[in-house]
Amino acid sequence: MKLVEMGLLVETAIEISIRSVIERDQSAAQEVLAAEARINAIELEIDALAIELLALHQPMASNLRFIIAALKINSDLERMGDLAANIAHSAKALGETPAMEQIVDIPLIAGLAQSMVRKSLDAFVAADVDLALSVLASDDAVDSLRTACYHQLVTFMRKDPRNVSAGLNLLAVTRTIERLADHSTNIAEDVLFFVKGVDVRHQFAALLLNERTTE
Amino acid sequence: MKLVEMGLLVETAIEISIRSVIERDQSAAQEVLAAEARINAIELEIDALAIELLALHQPMASNLRFIIAALKINSDLERMGDLAANIAHSAKALGETPAMEQIVDIPLIAGLAQSMVRKSLDAFVAADVDLALSVLASDDAVDSLRTACYHQLVTFMRKDPRNVSAGLNLLAVTRTIERLADHSTNIAEDVLFFVKGVDVRHQFAALLLNERTTE
Repeated sequence: MKLVEMGLLVETAIEISIRSVIERDQSAAQEVLAAEARINAIELEIDALAIELLALHQPMASNLRFIIAALKINSDLERMGDLAANIAHSAKALGETPAMEQIVDIPLIAGLAQSMVRKSLDAFVAADVDLALSVLASDDAVDSLRTACYHQLVTFMRKDPRNVSAGLNLLAVTRTIERLADHSTNIAEDVLFFVKGVDVRHQFAALLLNERTTE
Repeated sequence: MKLVEMGLLVETAIEISIRSVIERDQSAAQEVLAAEARINAIELEIDALAIELLALHQPMASNLRFIIAALKINSDLERMGDLAANIAHSAKALGETPAMEQIVDIPLIAGLAQSMVRKSLDAFVAADVDLALSVLASDDAVDSLRTACYHQLVTFMRKDPRNVSAGLNLLAVTRTIERLADHSTNIAEDVLFFVKGVDVRHQFAALLLNERTTE
């Protein structure tokens, strides 16, 4: 399925973009920027395919929900490709500032977000409700890590005006990682919608999660 | 139509969120946060309506494209509601720092982004291709203004460590305004897709705009 190819491309772009930050690898950053065009092209192909399916087969019930979910996930994945490119841009900008000791734990927050992305896509492929719910449950942890990074970076920038540029770029990286995690919760919600036919966005997500923790 | 109501709610939330920053109006910020729940609820209603239309009427060609566009625009509007709430959060944080002279021209960049939002929604209602294209043409101006703000705020933060908090909040506001403009270009592209049946995202947008400037 084309959407799985799209998912793999985006996952790879994210992985390389994070590596470009952690290892200060400029050629990795360039690779991510090159992948963006391919991701954009596949998004259009998948949309066209979904619309063709709707027009020709006029699917009902769960098939209809599946196609609607695929359209939404496709759009999330395309924006995640853009976000990987943003991280690569930050990596390039960080490459221009002097190397510094590790101010914030990028591998930690990135690892968590990447595992959410992976799980949300696996949940879609396997129509796995539990896996989708586990993605929703991780979102708060990413938000907390990102808040901790924010405070560390504010302190770092206040300490020396020469830290401001690098601090802002690292801030942009952690914020973008948080947005990647947000998109993976969107995908997980779309999986729940197509599998169970219930819309768990907004208020319902909290409810479902509470039910699970009291099991 | 419910999507018009959604558009108006989001436009109002954006307007009030900007006012909460410019006038340091904490009660306006609170109003935006309260509107978010209503926007989230309407998003679910519109999605359900669109899926019902697809299932019951099995629309073809332009009607099908219209519903797909409505689903995508609905999702953009919901995220724009979230962004207005983000701006309101920044306004609340800015309210805790001492008042300072106007560092960046928020009214200018916000005015431009708000006019893009307005035009993209008007273009949808009137199925107006020229208006949708004019939204795409404005995106670069917002990006330039945002870059200028970025440099002004970096200078401001470097000047005095006590400026870092306020600088970061103003940076968040201008970045979020740029994202609002991005969403309005998404909406404009969806309008072009449903009116003309061509997908102008990515490469095509540039092409169309070039054609127009050489007319």
